[in-house]
Amino acid sequence: MPVNYQTPAAEQLKLVPGVQLGVTEAGIRKANRRDLTLITLAPGAQVAGVFTTNRFCAAPVQVCREHLVSGDIRALVINTGIANAGTGEQGMQTARASCEAVARALNVNAAQVLPFSTGVIMEPLPVNRLERGLPGAIANLAENNWHAAAHAIMTTDTVAKAASRQLVLSGKTITVTGISKGAGMIKPNVATMLGFVATDAAVTQDVLAKMVKSAADVSFNCVTVDGDTSTNDSFVLMASGAAGNAPINNLQSADAQALLGAVTEVAMELSQAIVRDGEGATKFITVAIKGGKTHEECKAVGYWIAHSPLVKTAFFASDPNLGRILAAIGNAGAQSIPDLDTSKVKLWIGDVLVSLNGGRNPDYREEQGAAVMQPAEITITVDLGRGDVAATLWTCDFSYDYVKINADYRS
Amino acid sequence: MPVNYQTPAAEQLKLVPGVQLGVTEAGIRKANRRDLTLITLAPGAQVAGVFTTNRFCAAPVQVCREHLVSGDIRALVINTGIANAGTGEQGMQTARASCEAVARALNVNAAQVLPFSTGVIMEPLPVNRLERGLPGAIANLAENNWHAAAHAIMTTDTVAKAASRQLVLSGKTITVTGISKGAGMIKPNVATMLGFVATDAAVTQDVLAKMVKSAADVSFNCVTVDGDTSTNDSFVLMASGAAGNAPINNLQSADAQALLGAVTEVAMELSQAIVRDGEGATKFITVAIKGGKTHEECKAVGYWIAHSPLVKTAFFASDPNLGRILAAIGNAGAQSIPDLDTSKVKLWIGDVLVSLNGGRNPDYREEQGAAVMQPAEITITVDLGRGDVAATLWTCDFSYDYVKINADYRS
Repeated sequence: MPVNYQTPAAEQLKLVPGVQLGVTEAGIRKANRRDLTLITLAPGAQVAGVFTTNRFCAAPVQVCREHLVSGDIRALVINTGIANAGTGEQGMQTARASCEAVARALNVNAAQVLPFSTGVIMEPLPVNRLERGLPGAIANLAENNWHAAAHAIMTTDTVAKAASRQLVLSGKTITVTGISKGAGMIKPNVATMLGFVATDAAVTQDVLAKMVKSAADVSFNCVTVDGDTSTNDSFVLMASGAAGNAPINNLQSADAQALLGAVTEVAMELSQAIVRDGEGATKFITVAIKGGKTHEECKAVGYWIAHSPLVKTAFFASDPNLGRILAAIGNAGAQSIPDLDTSKVKLWIGDVLVSLNGGRNPDYREEQGAAVMQPAEITITVDLGRGDVAATLWTCDFSYDYVKINADYRS
Repeated sequence: MPVNYQTPAAEQLKLVPGVQLGVTEAGIRKANRRDLTLITLAPGAQVAGVFTTNRFCAAPVQVCREHLVSGDIRALVINTGIANAGTGEQGMQTARASCEAVARALNVNAAQVLPFSTGVIMEPLPVNRLERGLPGAIANLAENNWHAAAHAIMTTDTVAKAASRQLVLSGKTITVTGISKGAGMIKPNVATMLGFVATDAAVTQDVLAKMVKSAADVSFNCVTVDGDTSTNDSFVLMASGAAGNAPINNLQSADAQALLGAVTEVAMELSQAIVRDGEGATKFITVAIKGGKTHEECKAVGYWIAHSPLVKTAFFASDPNLGRILAAIGNAGAQSIPDLDTSKVKLWIGDVLVSLNGGRNPDYREEQGAAVMQPAEITITVDLGRGDVAATLWTCDFSYDYVKINADYRS
């Protein structure tokens, strides 16, 4: 059961002119499930993406990076079941072969296709099955298929994840719609966080690349379930240009900032939905760090808190365990802020100031902490007391079910 | 139930001439348990230590660091129940007050006393109870009390941890005996890994400081249960000099190397016992990294593997989940080895080569992996294929009981 999240209804997901989606059952790993999604883009569309930093990055991620260099992308092909990661040179060949199959079917070049895979690691991708599924996916192509695509890219997700916004830019109504999948940074074998967001606004490649980075930095790059980064993580932003606006070519313009705002909102909703659907999650935790000197040190402190198994099990127990949080801050300091002055650090759980001056707030009473730890959504705020930079991360708790899901997955 | 570990019998722990230990019930936090340990050292003994890197380091750790500067340490006082961490300026006062109480009772200076605390964080240490307990601890002082002290420093440990070695240096029999406690890097509130090792060899302060660092680097600094470093972690090496050997003043001498070997063996046994008694542990995992360019990069890779909740739950499930281990190596690469060539990485589980050339070993069969994952002790070996440096870490798996212990602790 995700924490306070349900899939939007199909009619809430506004179609994006110039972007079609088709899904089908290709039998990639198992029969009788929609496991192949094709997204096609109108000619002239721009695409930009950010990808996993994992050094064992999957073959499709490597091919995406190559193909994005030349641009003019016309299709995305996404399979579940097999991740095509940890597959060496053979994996590169099958990733390229999937692009070639899509290119033949759509009459474009292989370099105009981006491949994405999510599923079991170290198993070969059956390209023949993918190819046999393509006619079905093509027959299914439609602009109003976001809801179906959100479901087709799921692996062990318990809910499909999608979000949509509309805004008016220079008198034209613009849509931003996206889908995502993932329930752990890396699933047992079914790896991966994927996000696909499209708009019909016309945006230059240069500005789009900055937008995807900017949106990712406060969304997909700020959520964590278990601290592991998948070999396949990808977040892609597509701009079809079908709205017919004058192409947005300056990130500082009012239109660009308005569009970036909508893209960021969609990306935050999609990425937070992954945490809400985190493996075994019973709580949705916001970790807000302020008073830092740099964005990096704020995120470092946030991640130490968000990744500490001791902090996460305390959230599961609704236990206001201040010592565990302070210890996590202290560990972040050791690693990333050698000159952290712990006597200046302040810590709040919810709106209760629990720690200051290197110790417990003398006015704090345990009942206050216990009360603010009860809800399904909890905010931890840390003021580092050394600057004016802030960063916010989102994570979930660590429950029996996390162990159960991850220990039992392959059995 | 610890993994393949039981406390040595009292008679297996050789006494260290010049080092006496006394334990008593001081009622620090709860009645009817031995919670106060006093260790006294003959005049002229040398002491060196290594301490937590956590920036929220506990008051007793700060006082230890201060007192070690002037040297001439004559006593160590260790209480369980209260960690005196996250206690701000008041915590520093109570840590100093404990040293003063011991100093009065033993007729030494407060600066000659090292304080250690382990237990609940952010609660004040009741110095008056500690002081009232001192006469009982002093009355109990004896050289053959290592077994009792190993028990008195336990918090949520399920077994007491102790080890002993003897060796002959230049014709004299030398003893090295030690005790440790800890079952997680940081316990819920009952924090801390503590290690105390003593020898009767005469060693200069300079060489002793190098020995404690060297031994810690391959023992207490190479074990991890959950990746959190306690606010109170301390490892102390004492040399009473009672053996009457010519003081060891050169780390490169044969005697120094032989003594260091014995100290390191004791430290490894004590620190590995902490992992074997790790919270909820059912497996003892050795993570051996070789083929690195630096010790740091080997340890970084090892810690990514050892800390990954996905890897640890796979060990719990006895599941040869190669993808999770490869992904952990890839994440270590992203963070610490930007130029890691994953096609050169080799991975073994037990003696089975499971991965090479960036993918699965074509000769590997799942049954082989399943077989080597069954025993309670498992070795993972990674060859980074880029140098000739190696490092070994030890960790345990991640079970339902880990969550249970950490979620239920305070309830």
